[in-house]
Amino acid sequence: MDVDIVSTGHTPFGKCSEDIGGLMLNACNEALENANTGASDVDAIYISNFSSSFSNQCQLPGLLTSKLGVGNEITRVESACAAGGLAVKEAALAILSGLYDKVLVCGVEKMSETPTDKATEIIARASDQEEINHGATFPSLFALMAQRHFHEYGTMEEHLASVAVKNHKNALNNSLAQFQKEISVEKVMNSRYIASPLKIFDCSPLSDGASAVLMCRKELSRKYTDAPVNFAGMGHYTDYIGLYERKSLTEMPAVARAAKKAYSMSGLSPGDIGFAEVHDCFTIAELVEIEDLGFCKKGEGKNIVTDGTTEIDGSLPINPSGGLKAKGHPIGATGVSQVVEVVKQLQGDAGKRTISGVDTGLCCNIGGSGSSAVVSIFRRE
Amino acid sequence: MDVDIVSTGHTPFGKCSEDIGGLMLNACNEALENANTGASDVDAIYISNFSSSFSNQCQLPGLLTSKLGVGNEITRVESACAAGGLAVKEAALAILSGLYDKVLVCGVEKMSETPTDKATEIIARASDQEEINHGATFPSLFALMAQRHFHEYGTMEEHLASVAVKNHKNALNNSLAQFQKEISVEKVMNSRYIASPLKIFDCSPLSDGASAVLMCRKELSRKYTDAPVNFAGMGHYTDYIGLYERKSLTEMPAVARAAKKAYSMSGLSPGDIGFAEVHDCFTIAELVEIEDLGFCKKGEGKNIVTDGTTEIDGSLPINPSGGLKAKGHPIGATGVSQVVEVVKQLQGDAGKRTISGVDTGLCCNIGGSGSSAVVSIFRRE
Repeated sequence: MDVDIVSTGHTPFGKCSEDIGGLMLNACNEALENANTGASDVDAIYISNFSSSFSNQCQLPGLLTSKLGVGNEITRVESACAAGGLAVKEAALAILSGLYDKVLVCGVEKMSETPTDKATEIIARASDQEEINHGATFPSLFALMAQRHFHEYGTMEEHLASVAVKNHKNALNNSLAQFQKEISVEKVMNSRYIASPLKIFDCSPLSDGASAVLMCRKELSRKYTDAPVNFAGMGHYTDYIGLYERKSLTEMPAVARAAKKAYSMSGLSPGDIGFAEVHDCFTIAELVEIEDLGFCKKGEGKNIVTDGTTEIDGSLPINPSGGLKAKGHPIGATGVSQVVEVVKQLQGDAGKRTISGVDTGLCCNIGGSGSSAVVSIFRRE
Repeated sequence: MDVDIVSTGHTPFGKCSEDIGGLMLNACNEALENANTGASDVDAIYISNFSSSFSNQCQLPGLLTSKLGVGNEITRVESACAAGGLAVKEAALAILSGLYDKVLVCGVEKMSETPTDKATEIIARASDQEEINHGATFPSLFALMAQRHFHEYGTMEEHLASVAVKNHKNALNNSLAQFQKEISVEKVMNSRYIASPLKIFDCSPLSDGASAVLMCRKELSRKYTDAPVNFAGMGHYTDYIGLYERKSLTEMPAVARAAKKAYSMSGLSPGDIGFAEVHDCFTIAELVEIEDLGFCKKGEGKNIVTDGTTEIDGSLPINPSGGLKAKGHPIGATGVSQVVEVVKQLQGDAGKRTISGVDTGLCCNIGGSGSSAVVSIFRRE
């Protein structure tokens, strides 16, 4: 596509002192400053945010105008945890429409002030009321997927643990990550169950944070950076909301369909992808997604998450940022944060965790129990 | 723009028995059936919805897939009460991007099951926390605008009452309207104050409802209808969230800026507009908006709302549908419902309330106390 990402902004993820407006402002200002420009130079802004119930604040577009001190055309988008990927998609469509040249995207969520039980209830609104009324929450829905994956393919708790260990290890080199603490497979295996077979270390945390990217028409990108990153392909698909409505518990058809579209648009195949940020809200999600993205055959995820392939020095690094598991998961910010990581990697600006010799990166951002998915592919210019 | 509206769908507004998914399904199905097509023929869907707190349901994209029985690319957008106008804007951008041919838009809100005090609190989240923490709610914010308008321009309660009377009268011919009941200026004047000078009949109600439009590339529209309506121009602007941050209490700069853009894109001026649906969440809002849209000079709104100009048989009918006041205001559905009315009028399909001899209609959809505005102009093909 004739759309480039030219700069990024990213607050620390975790428990932050800023309110939701301050988080947005910090991420936006960093992206604008990194492109040596200002808010009044931007033609439109997209905000991704999951739920107004965490901060009792809707109308984030108006709030962002007040924070930036200048009006704009600002739109919030949402499709559960896939909000961030969608905001990046909408920004690309705005540029491709020919009506906008430069578009800022900001993802945000402020969750830490909400008690955990209340937060769990708010997050459950991303699923079907039938499921929720029968007692399901997101940990239990993903636990069902894991149980079935174990049954069909011989995947084991140790395989899932290795995903958590890798992502925590990667986050050691990410100063913005919520957990910068190494863990071991043994530690994961001995941690308490949340929803069997998922233990506390299989689950991503509640987080505050914001992330931002500045996008523009390809012809303009050198005005803002010497290292533009091209938005090569995007795919989006919305599947049934209920896990029980899906033919298989071990597949996310939305991911497969979104990926197919993104690969087709970019002219790339899974084998061409240098590294990926995937949506590890639970460790089983990372495993299912790397299968549905075509990085290995269905059922073989357990092999590549343990044989070193997905380590940062492997042939296909997954979640070099630390992923949702260790970097944190401020829901609306996550999809944009994935793009920030891919762009920073491709700009050679990811510090100690920079992956050398890669020209393409992929983001897989899902919502609900896989009911929505956005897959985006980026390429060094 | 090379974008047409080809069909519409609209549930009754008011207290409906359907849940939020059923409301969406009914509006979408009607729009699809009116174009003799099906959900699988649509390339993308945009949903407008204000708050998940009314129905405890986020991830409406996944829910709509489940209701329609077929997946798609579905995105929810929000900017307070301007969500509907924004969804139509995003659908137009998707078509203009060249990546999508046919896009469905569905606005929805299910509010009647929420107690009034809780609903008032949820709606207040569309404003600044500073205002809300000091005791403001939306009736009181719009009451401030009215008080100042009275002070500056000699507007009186009777002028506002005439807006309510007209909109109730128009709704008598709208079988989908929440209030199909004639009222008099005397009845409005004798009704109880909610926030002085606004009385109960100056306020729009809490409502359930959904609305939908099917949009496509102009070249394709004759496949779906003999009476396509062209989306001639659109404008969007996001101002400060707080009323206290605005220079004047009697103007909505977001409306003026959005209108300027929409007029420019369409090549039309206020004098070319045949009729308009404007956002009369409170009667004072209709009066301020018709001024800021350029239909009369600032301060002269009181004249054209009482001299017959804005009556359905006047020279510039305003809110032929009954407006938010009488048709109802299911927040996320409102902006799309405005487009439905304009399209039906331009298709000559508005029954007894059809305005004869008009070729252009305008929609003005605002969010918050005017912190966001979307102005859209449509023209008979």
